[in-house]
Amino acid sequence: MTKQLKIATIGGGSSYTPELVEGLIKHYDEFPVTELWLVDIKAGEDKLNIVGALAMRMIKKAGLPIDVHLTLNREAALKNADFVTTQFRVGLLEARGKDERIPLTYDVIGQETNGAGGLFKGLRTIPVILDICRDIERLCPNAWLINFTNPAGMVTEAVLRYSNIKKVVGLCNVPIGIEMGVAKLLDVDHSRIRIDFAGLNHMVYGLDVFLDGVSVKDEVVDKLTDPEQTSFVKNIEGIGYDPAFIRALGVLTCPYHNYYYKHRDMLEKQHKEAKEQGTRAEVVLKLESELFELYQDENLAIKPPQLEERGGAYYSEAAVRLITSIYNDTCDIQPVNTRNNGAIKSLPDESAVEISSVITKDGPKPIAIGDLPVATRGLVQQIKSFERLSAEAAVTGNYDLAVTALAINPLTPSDTIARAIVDEMMEAHKQYLPQFFK
Amino acid sequence: MTKQLKIATIGGGSSYTPELVEGLIKHYDEFPVTELWLVDIKAGEDKLNIVGALAMRMIKKAGLPIDVHLTLNREAALKNADFVTTQFRVGLLEARGKDERIPLTYDVIGQETNGAGGLFKGLRTIPVILDICRDIERLCPNAWLINFTNPAGMVTEAVLRYSNIKKVVGLCNVPIGIEMGVAKLLDVDHSRIRIDFAGLNHMVYGLDVFLDGVSVKDEVVDKLTDPEQTSFVKNIEGIGYDPAFIRALGVLTCPYHNYYYKHRDMLEKQHKEAKEQGTRAEVVLKLESELFELYQDENLAIKPPQLEERGGAYYSEAAVRLITSIYNDTCDIQPVNTRNNGAIKSLPDESAVEISSVITKDGPKPIAIGDLPVATRGLVQQIKSFERLSAEAAVTGNYDLAVTALAINPLTPSDTIARAIVDEMMEAHKQYLPQFFK
Amino acid sequence: MTKQLKIATIGGGSSYTPELVEGLIKHYDEFPVTELWLVDIKAGEDKLNIVGALAMRMIKKAGLPIDVHLTLNREAALKNADFVTTQFRVGLLEARGKDERIPLTYDVIGQETNGAGGLFKGLRTIPVILDICRDIERLCPNAWLINFTNPAGMVTEAVLRYSNIKKVVGLCNVPIGIEMGVAKLLDVDHSRIRIDFAGLNHMVYGLDVFLDGVSVKDEVVDKLTDPEQTSFVKNIEGIGYDPAFIRALGVLTCPYHNYYYKHRDMLEKQHKEAKEQGTRAEVVLKLESELFELYQDENLAIKPPQLEERGGAYYSEAAVRLITSIYNDTCDIQPVNTRNNGAIKSLPDESAVEISSVITKDGPKPIAIGDLPVATRGLVQQIKSFERLSAEAAVTGNYDLAVTALAINPLTPSDTIARAIVDEMMEAHKQYLPQFFK
Amino acid sequence: MTKQLKIATIGGGSSYTPELVEGLIKHYDEFPVTELWLVDIKAGEDKLNIVGALAMRMIKKAGLPIDVHLTLNREAALKNADFVTTQFRVGLLEARGKDERIPLTYDVIGQETNGAGGLFKGLRTIPVILDICRDIERLCPNAWLINFTNPAGMVTEAVLRYSNIKKVVGLCNVPIGIEMGVAKLLDVDHSRIRIDFAGLNHMVYGLDVFLDGVSVKDEVVDKLTDPEQTSFVKNIEGIGYDPAFIRALGVLTCPYHNYYYKHRDMLEKQHKEAKEQGTRAEVVLKLESELFELYQDENLAIKPPQLEERGGAYYSEAAVRLITSIYNDTCDIQPVNTRNNGAIKSLPDESAVEISSVITKDGPKPIAIGDLPVATRGLVQQIKSFERLSAEAAVTGNYDLAVTALAINPLTPSDTIARAIVDEMMEAHKQYLPQFFK
Repeated sequence: MTKQLKIATIGGGSSYTPELVEGLIKHYDEFPVTELWLVDIKAGEDKLNIVGALAMRMIKKAGLPIDVHLTLNREAALKNADFVTTQFRVGLLEARGKDERIPLTYDVIGQETNGAGGLFKGLRTIPVILDICRDIERLCPNAWLINFTNPAGMVTEAVLRYSNIKKVVGLCNVPIGIEMGVAKLLDVDHSRIRIDFAGLNHMVYGLDVFLDGVSVKDEVVDKLTDPEQTSFVKNIEGIGYDPAFIRALGVLTCPYHNYYYKHRDMLEKQHKEAKEQGTRAEVVLKLESELFELYQDENLAIKPPQLEERGGAYYSEAAVRLITSIYNDTCDIQPVNTRNNGAIKSLPDESAVEISSVITKDGPKPIAIGDLPVATRGLVQQIKSFERLSAEAAVTGNYDLAVTALAINPLTPSDTIARAIVDEMMEAHKQYLPQFFK
Repeated sequence: MTKQLKIATIGGGSSYTPELVEGLIKHYDEFPVTELWLVDIKAGEDKLNIVGALAMRMIKKAGLPIDVHLTLNREAALKNADFVTTQFRVGLLEARGKDERIPLTYDVIGQETNGAGGLFKGLRTIPVILDICRDIERLCPNAWLINFTNPAGMVTEAVLRYSNIKKVVGLCNVPIGIEMGVAKLLDVDHSRIRIDFAGLNHMVYGLDVFLDGVSVKDEVVDKLTDPEQTSFVKNIEGIGYDPAFIRALGVLTCPYHNYYYKHRDMLEKQHKEAKEQGTRAEVVLKLESELFELYQDENLAIKPPQLEERGGAYYSEAAVRLITSIYNDTCDIQPVNTRNNGAIKSLPDESAVEISSVITKDGPKPIAIGDLPVATRGLVQQIKSFERLSAEAAVTGNYDLAVTALAINPLTPSDTIARAIVDEMMEAHKQYLPQFFK
Repeated sequence: MTKQLKIATIGGGSSYTPELVEGLIKHYDEFPVTELWLVDIKAGEDKLNIVGALAMRMIKKAGLPIDVHLTLNREAALKNADFVTTQFRVGLLEARGKDERIPLTYDVIGQETNGAGGLFKGLRTIPVILDICRDIERLCPNAWLINFTNPAGMVTEAVLRYSNIKKVVGLCNVPIGIEMGVAKLLDVDHSRIRIDFAGLNHMVYGLDVFLDGVSVKDEVVDKLTDPEQTSFVKNIEGIGYDPAFIRALGVLTCPYHNYYYKHRDMLEKQHKEAKEQGTRAEVVLKLESELFELYQDENLAIKPPQLEERGGAYYSEAAVRLITSIYNDTCDIQPVNTRNNGAIKSLPDESAVEISSVITKDGPKPIAIGDLPVATRGLVQQIKSFERLSAEAAVTGNYDLAVTALAINPLTPSDTIARAIVDEMMEAHKQYLPQFFK
Repeated sequence: MTKQLKIATIGGGSSYTPELVEGLIKHYDEFPVTELWLVDIKAGEDKLNIVGALAMRMIKKAGLPIDVHLTLNREAALKNADFVTTQFRVGLLEARGKDERIPLTYDVIGQETNGAGGLFKGLRTIPVILDICRDIERLCPNAWLINFTNPAGMVTEAVLRYSNIKKVVGLCNVPIGIEMGVAKLLDVDHSRIRIDFAGLNHMVYGLDVFLDGVSVKDEVVDKLTDPEQTSFVKNIEGIGYDPAFIRALGVLTCPYHNYYYKHRDMLEKQHKEAKEQGTRAEVVLKLESELFELYQDENLAIKPPQLEERGGAYYSEAAVRLITSIYNDTCDIQPVNTRNNGAIKSLPDESAVEISSVITKDGPKPIAIGDLPVATRGLVQQIKSFERLSAEAAVTGNYDLAVTALAINPLTPSDTIARAIVDEMMEAHKQYLPQFFK
């Protein structure tokens, strides 16, 4: 008789769910899940049914004994779960659209996890995640909470500081994407690449890069600064960096660093895209509706390739390798969002950081790096301050803190603009921000 | 017989010198200087003679036995000095003008101690100050180096890291200016005000404010956020802050914070001023020429009141109270730039910080604050990273480091603009940057 | 009309009280106390009346308008107090006698503030001090708690960690005693000596010694290691140190260091004294009874000189200079037990340390030292661990923690002996340790 | 054609060498060594020849293409080596005998790696290891130095602080021994046990114990404190701990902790053993001569089982699993002595610690633990101070430092006894301590 192994996926009606299901099927030998509970809210019921039906067809086709449950009852889903994954979006893509559009009207970056958008996504999401944490405490206190919900760094910080849940990991597909990009750049299989990651979510650096255990960082940096290689650089970096800068910085950046190191270019790009093709939320909304069209096809029993365009590349890979390693006490190294615990000296021990960690059944154990390179320390500290103030504002409903969180963000041009944006966005997201309208 | 007490002032031909002389006269009882050596370079000889003659007249009028020496021979000036003060400007106001004008053409803040201007002032100044340090080691190893030369934080950092001189203090009139402003705001004598300062030069915060030892921070913050008080706020802050921001920040800022917290406004202001009245260097050039006109008046034997407009308010006060306290082992509290030594947790022990310190004959001893408030930690870390990279670039002549120092500065819109500005400014200041043109 | 200024002294019947009263009289101009409340427990009523009557005679003789109140009602004493001083001894000298005698029967140092004696004095005292803290919170929330009760380091640690009182300072006469000894050694007035103290209570080091602000540490160390000077060394150190040791240690030690650096000699000395003249408690008991004999003399209106033999030299000086500096926001430097706040890097921010601090109306501000010299870091860390475990045991009544606190103490020869001593002393002090006998 | 893979073993004539050879044979598939150079000094030539001949017979029997070279020429041995292992003993067992005997005459623990013995073994060994480091820099700069030479913590500290070699790992069989003991206690295969180790060499704690990834620390502690289990406890601990102590300590100790937590018992045991069977050096001397008798048997081609009694249990296992993991970039977790790098907060970043680390081709990466449990922090800090002073004394030949290193060691009863022991041992080991007799 098989031991029960239950996953509860909150936001199960997400278009990403087939990614997760594909991963579970592929890794069934190492991680023999018996029950997969997809749970969503009333407003997401239709999508839940569509994506749930597809999940069932995929599992049936794979011939695996995994029971799929679709439910709007979060308590039932969480009861005795071994792993809880979260991938919900409070306010759906409509809210994301506002996060992107409103700041732009102030000539300020509008992005879902950075700056004003990140702040408001955090303000909407954190009370919900803390509510889930209280349910977990009660219904499945031994479960691991694997959070994919953005802004993942801020959300993990909030769980670590404001809940009683210690078994939490924040996960993002950015680091695995960098690994894949480097493997492609060097034309080697990605299993041969290892990168020492450290920093914060969407603000993570690759401190060193190893091919079969030997540092190839200088070679990678050379290639990144080689104009002949620009097509690849675009894949990792979006826009090529100045060679002098990237050489002296001495580390790999992540795509989200563009918002900071190429602030002006990114702002222009956003204005242009918003005018020509719509903001990212608007593009994704269209992609999603096409995806759900596909998902409804009763002959479809695999993850459709079009999902990759949605932006979740390697999501399945990252998610399932993390869960599998925890389950099996694999002790391999993966970059995750976890409690710093002294691994990065200039950040608080109790804060969430994104860092290469050994993944054990007892959770991720961050590898000590001493401190970040001098040139990267400031930006990381600044974003951590932003995350902490935002999380505190989300929990307390303190308006002044929300303004100040935004005012100290490096993407914000002034305190008075911060306040104007906060005022407009508070009103726009009012229904999801009860803590500020008591 | 009086014991010799010798001050050597490098950049002695500066228009500020009468400030210093006035202070020495006023505090002669506590600090009975016997020799004042004003030393300058060949290019400054005329000014040195004018200002030196005024200094002599001032001392004569005061009836004090202080010998004033004017010289172009730095070795003679340093020989056996007890205190060395530095107040020179490599490249004079002409160079400052370029520091202000060139960045503006890229739509970037042009300011003498922040951003691109701060970087290039550092690149020009640091090799000279390290050269002076080597002379001090040889000629007056027991002397205290009191550095007023900007960017004072970066310069002090460079002396601490790249010279053998340990007896160095960086001094700035910004903190004393804030004290005076608060005293005026509360309508009390400034001797009754004490502020716990911590941060970096031109990036210093007032963590708490005491009137007769009792915290009045909340009252001061209330007044700062009171629209009725805006006229005063302008005195301290330049531009009023949004009350929500200043309340949640919970500390006093310094005027230079405007470049960061009011970035867009300050940039507009600079463009406007540059067009209408010229940059600050251009305004100061005019003021200086008027001042030297006055200084030449052989009937003048006091510091002329017009000097205050020059921008060095309380300079004399700050300088002489520091020197006097060191000399007399007074053990009073003053805000200075000194080795952190663990006083601010998230900054390196060996870095320069601007912090309230006990002033002893053995130097300033910083008072431990634990760590800076969360909301202020990021910006401070970022500027410290900028200062460290700039200082290293100045010492090594490493071009990539210079680009990267500027690229990570929060006032810089992108790495490629950083490079363009560095390229143009390197060329413009070429004669003062031999380390980059080997 | 004079503003009320009220001191409440808990353990007011102590033989030390005339010291305090003398200090208050001497410094009345700077610290115009209006009410002195001496409070004690029922068992101390007789002593309270004797010493209280003496206090009244002293004040009357001085012609000062200070009202002295004698009471067994702690609430009345605390109500609206400005300063609360504590100098009580739970279990009186009889308990101290057990702290000294019992360990010796195991061939282990028996001393009131170190090792087993220190542990049990802490276990008895901490619940009482925390009870007082709760009263202070309720009755005089703005008062400063000045704790003289030993073990002062452990008690201050407990108040900082386990009460809501933040306005607490632990005070000891050891540092002032070292200052006086050094002044005598150099034959100068002690006002010309300043010592940079850092460490823990009864484990404090003099990191540097200044005469008129100039370091004379090497000279002092030379004298301390000069055999011709042994008579003095005995004054400071009890027993002379080996010159090689004291030179390489490079700092001044305190008398209590003998228990560690001269462990074997001190143990022999204790055995000998216990046999020949009785333990310290027994000697003091005799001294005290002589003192109270004197105190009853109705013609006595000054502190009798015999009190000095009691062991509290400079106690009055230390106490009153602290209270006066807080009251007047003097900002002078004094060595006190206060929250570390990062001043000593290898100790926790939130722990109590004994360190040179600036004394303000807002409390002591420790001066950052970076870290202790390598050679001293281990012992300090060990005693801090001992203090923390002892305090936690005192608060929780956790027997295992009490055993372990003693087992890790450097004066303890093994865990099993630790347990045997704890068992015997628990029984001996049972009536004062209700938390362990629930 | 096989790539060359060369090991140089300094002190190759050691009786332990067959352990290493056995390991290399067993793991040849993962680590295909081509050359094994055994190097020793002239005085060890006979042993080198005996043990070298045995090594050759073992390899021949295994049928592996490993060339064994025996040499007195260290330069030849090091030239282009990939791994350098060190297992030498300056002064041989005769010197160890003195390290054990002399302190005992002062009624002080005499032990080869702790207290006075550890100090003098360090003073003799460190100059030699630093000399080897200089050779490595010149002859095989890419080699990994795997140091087994005791005192391994102090030696690794010295290499990290006083050489240019960064590729160094100190290795000890104590942690693996604890793992084996726990496996036996739980009656499971040791591959299922993982322990989070942290501390210093011969002062390492098991912070948590996992069986198949699930914490079983409480169960292990229960068994360790169960009187029925004493026979096992002896295996791990030597002497059983008091249950109250071990419960509140909350971590696993190592056998060497007995010298501290059971100081008095161990001292008595040493006196008894010295009288009855000789010190450990004397016992080992006898064992070694029996071993070399066995090794000379030309029919012997395996590691003789008697070697296990010598004390190096699991040495082969620990050594070869480390080298193999470095060579293959295995990224498994092993406890090693490496640069702290912030992994243990209260110890310096640049100091050697013994800690569970991920073993990569780029070296060990310590896993961040935050800080050690409060109860263990003091002793660890004290031993680190002892190691640092000892290493500095070894490098500088500073006599005062040597005295002070011993005086601050927790096994030393006083500074004057420290000096007396140092004086006698300096004389006894004079020929190996040229740095002190210049």
